[in-house]
Amino acid sequence: ETLMGKYGDNSKLIYELQDQGGELLALRYDLTVPFARYLAMNKITNIKRYHIAKVYRRDNPRATRGRYREFYQCDFDIAGQFDPMIPDAECLKIVHEILSELQLGDFVIKVNDRRILNGVFAVCGVPESRFVTTCSAVDKMDKMPWEEVRSEMVGEKGLSPEAADRIGEYIRLHGGLELVERLLQDPKLSQNKLAREGLGDMKLLFEYLTLFGITGKVSFDLSLARGLDYYTGVIFEAVLLQQENEQVEEPVSVGSVAGGGRYDGLVGMFDPKGRKVPCVGVSIGIERIFSILEQRVEASEEKIRTTETQVLVASAQKKLLEERLKLVSELWDAGVKAEILYKKNPKLLNQLQYCEDTGIPLVAIVGEQELKDGVVKLRVVATREEVNVRRESLVEEIRMRTSQ
Amino acid sequence: ETLMGKYGDNSKLIYELQDQGGELLALRYDLTVPFARYLAMNKITNIKRYHIAKVYRRDNPRATRGRYREFYQCDFDIAGQFDPMIPDAECLKIVHEILSELQLGDFVIKVNDRRILNGVFAVCGVPESRFVTTCSAVDKMDKMPWEEVRSEMVGEKGLSPEAADRIGEYIRLHGGLELVERLLQDPKLSQNKLAREGLGDMKLLFEYLTLFGITGKVSFDLSLARGLDYYTGVIFEAVLLQQENEQVEEPVSVGSVAGGGRYDGLVGMFDPKGRKVPCVGVSIGIERIFSILEQRVEASEEKIRTTETQVLVASAQKKLLEERLKLVSELWDAGVKAEILYKKNPKLLNQLQYCEDTGIPLVAIVGEQELKDGVVKLRVVATREEVNVRRESLVEEIRMRTSQ
Repeated sequence: ETLMGKYGDNSKLIYELQDQGGELLALRYDLTVPFARYLAMNKITNIKRYHIAKVYRRDNPRATRGRYREFYQCDFDIAGQFDPMIPDAECLKIVHEILSELQLGDFVIKVNDRRILNGVFAVCGVPESRFVTTCSAVDKMDKMPWEEVRSEMVGEKGLSPEAADRIGEYIRLHGGLELVERLLQDPKLSQNKLAREGLGDMKLLFEYLTLFGITGKVSFDLSLARGLDYYTGVIFEAVLLQQENEQVEEPVSVGSVAGGGRYDGLVGMFDPKGRKVPCVGVSIGIERIFSILEQRVEASEEKIRTTETQVLVASAQKKLLEERLKLVSELWDAGVKAEILYKKNPKLLNQLQYCEDTGIPLVAIVGEQELKDGVVKLRVVATREEVNVRRESLVEEIRMRTSQ
Repeated sequence: ETLMGKYGDNSKLIYELQDQGGELLALRYDLTVPFARYLAMNKITNIKRYHIAKVYRRDNPRATRGRYREFYQCDFDIAGQFDPMIPDAECLKIVHEILSELQLGDFVIKVNDRRILNGVFAVCGVPESRFVTTCSAVDKMDKMPWEEVRSEMVGEKGLSPEAADRIGEYIRLHGGLELVERLLQDPKLSQNKLAREGLGDMKLLFEYLTLFGITGKVSFDLSLARGLDYYTGVIFEAVLLQQENEQVEEPVSVGSVAGGGRYDGLVGMFDPKGRKVPCVGVSIGIERIFSILEQRVEASEEKIRTTETQVLVASAQKKLLEERLKLVSELWDAGVKAEILYKKNPKLLNQLQYCEDTGIPLVAIVGEQELKDGVVKLRVVATREEVNVRRESLVEEIRMRTSQ
């Protein structure tokens, strides 16, 4: 129950399995909690790994926004006792690299630290028992205006209006290293031990990100809270920015495409002796990213090849199925990606059309004459150029023509 | 219910999900039925695809034999209306290729055809209503002696002792093309339409497999029945053979590592109008194959590299974390697989030991002198050879030394 609680308000979305003979089971909600459990159960204190797999939510699917009940997550985590902020910086570097290489458009990676947030709550007069619920109110800042968040803080969460207003001033702040430096001088925050630690690590993080050359896309943003309860230190979230001058028929959905943070206490919850393994990790929203990329491909009418096949083995005359089978088998054995049409006597036109449709670049044509001459006619689909290639050189010729 | 029935006796192993607000759900039992459903729902009449994913069984796990409740299946299927036995032959070619390339030892691919089996049952006097249950009795031939199978046929399945004995004579037969030819001349079987069709296709299959050069490993085996109900034509199963002269401390578990067949009726069951899409496919037992490969690696004490990292960025002196971060970032940006230890001041010995342990072949060492000279010291872990490489040539040098 404590563990289910780690998903916060979201635990109602967990798919439960029927009791199958004394065992209560559920479908995994994310990859982080199972990862932490795996480390604890196998006494692993040091690992770096990625994991792409399905997770499940009892949610209302919204396919257009890339939200499903069964979907892939793609996580990268570094677990182990290390010097501060080095693995954390690597996680941000990876997010930056992924979003840049996929050319998803302009983005910003917001960073914050739970210790800084808790320090802010403390100096604003929030009692410690209300840190968690105040944090989940702050988390709504990107979905609703400050006025609504404020009234939730005062109403539901029971903060004083003054405390809420003081929090509001802090969480509107965002910037770079200079903001970190300024807050380290803040008369109130600098007196708070947690906030000081968080700000010290944030300074270190910015130094490392400068060495990685990526501070241009990183923003220290005090309104970033992240919904999940298990974070203990740095937290981050990558957000795509709407392109103003981009021509899109239907506006591409914009929003969070990656998120993560440090969770130093989670492994210890699964260990019988409570032994802790510090972790930091990131989850890439691949479903969302795929849905953006697909929308873009559709809009651009660009043709995407869905096969890796290098060559279609074809024939112009009838009764050559055996010869096609023999040749395709030779090519398979040599590691060439080859196909034939599953017809006894396919028409040459149909075979060529198939290549056009699927983007297969080459056709190897066998006919009576070619068989007699010990050659194969190799046709380049794009240019319609045809050359006779000696059978023993065919593999090499195909490799040459299909390597980049 | 009809669909659940397609898994035969095994449907009790399906994990059912709790009713989640009016929906009765279950975890998928295999990849074939969901594939057929996918084709029907999306009106796909022509596709070739592979799928590697998890399936679930309410079974007693036997980890040593590679049997789990949650495990991967690896399927390859060809769907569409084609000329006979061409895609079927390709499936067998693929099984042959996989088992050969993985060097799993000697194996045999048994083939049979449900139509031949049904023809056998018919000419042996089994009423058509008992074909399915007789088939599932034959399926036990590899697990129990004929006497027990016979008594199950006569006892539980209600066949006459004479019918059982006649079946027994047929299903003991196995061989190659010559057996197919002989059975095509069999006075009784050749009168049965189904058997004749099945034997005709089997002959075609052997001709194609000869062109593929793989008949040496293929055996027409009339005792092969396969447990699942959905097969309608050719069926096959690849079995590893125990090596007699192989030195193994613990005998490696031997058994079925791939299986499949033709299922021409399954897609139609999911189509509202019953439109059929003929399919043939194969399932590769990757968990079992992995467990065999792992046992072999353990026995051989061979060291397997678990990382693809090409180079560790290291330093010999203290206070060079920044320089290591800068260099590793440069390498990442150039697409080189690189790592650093997440320590401010790691000892050189620990960094070299890490490479030994994980099999990283190269170390790029930065030090005060190297930084002054604009070079990086590149160390080959295996030979301990060290060379100074100009920083601007480092990426190229690493690529050269780590390409095969």
